[in-house]
Amino acid sequence: MIRLEHIGIAVRDAAAVASLYEQLLGHGPYKAETVEREGVRTHFIQAGTAKLELLEALGPDSPVAKYLERRGEGLHHLAFEVDDIHAEMQRLRDLGFTPLSDEPRPGADGKLIFFLHPKQTHGVLVEFCQSVDAGS
Amino acid sequence: MIRLEHIGIAVRDAAAVASLYEQLLGHGPYKAETVEREGVRTHFIQAGTAKLELLEALGPDSPVAKYLERRGEGLHHLAFEVDDIHAEMQRLRDLGFTPLSDEPRPGADGKLIFFLHPKQTHGVLVEFCQSVDAGS
Repeated sequence: MIRLEHIGIAVRDAAAVASLYEQLLGHGPYKAETVEREGVRTHFIQAGTAKLELLEALGPDSPVAKYLERRGEGLHHLAFEVDDIHAEMQRLRDLGFTPLSDEPRPGADGKLIFFLHPKQTHGVLVEFCQSVDAGS
Repeated sequence: MIRLEHIGIAVRDAAAVASLYEQLLGHGPYKAETVEREGVRTHFIQAGTAKLELLEALGPDSPVAKYLERRGEGLHHLAFEVDDIHAEMQRLRDLGFTPLSDEPRPGADGKLIFFLHPKQTHGVLVEFCQSVDAGS
């Protein structure tokens, strides 16, 4: 069963946005994590059903930095959790989708992830993820 | 307890996007509803934890039509469900936020809703909602 796991939000200053969600939801992030490979510093906020993932660029070449330049702060992607990410990648390829990586790769929060480009999904960057490391 | 209830997605052609999510999630919308006052036709898709709400403009003056013109199809808003929407509105006013309406008003899905403008929330249009009509 595929389920919405988190919503990624591009931010310029995670501390300021964390403080905003503390006002809105009554609590701030429960963890922060840097993912060098993706060029991001993430902060996770529990939102009752799914999570919010604040995405801060690690440098000017980060995809998030480019996104912020183009679109400003705001909603960045949807992430759906699946039970078998390799099978899911194959299933989507069979349907004609072209994932943005050849294989699932390690993302934040102890997960394997891959993305579909917004051009294939009516404007929404879509991530698929599978938890592989409960200890993270 | 405040919880993420749905994610609004601005779309040009709900049928095409419904068919996309049928491929991604294995099922399409479970209901459609027109909200004249907001100028939108909505389609709701269950995504396991929270819902996706596809937003189609009813006409060129709809806020969603203007959004599509400016930003194209894509993620549009986050909606958080609260137990007492009037108390929530007052709580946010006391914190210095200015909701986009004077009072909560009827939205889709048997709910009372109000919004905070993205200028107040680091680029994310934020809806608060409370279920008031289980029969819808």
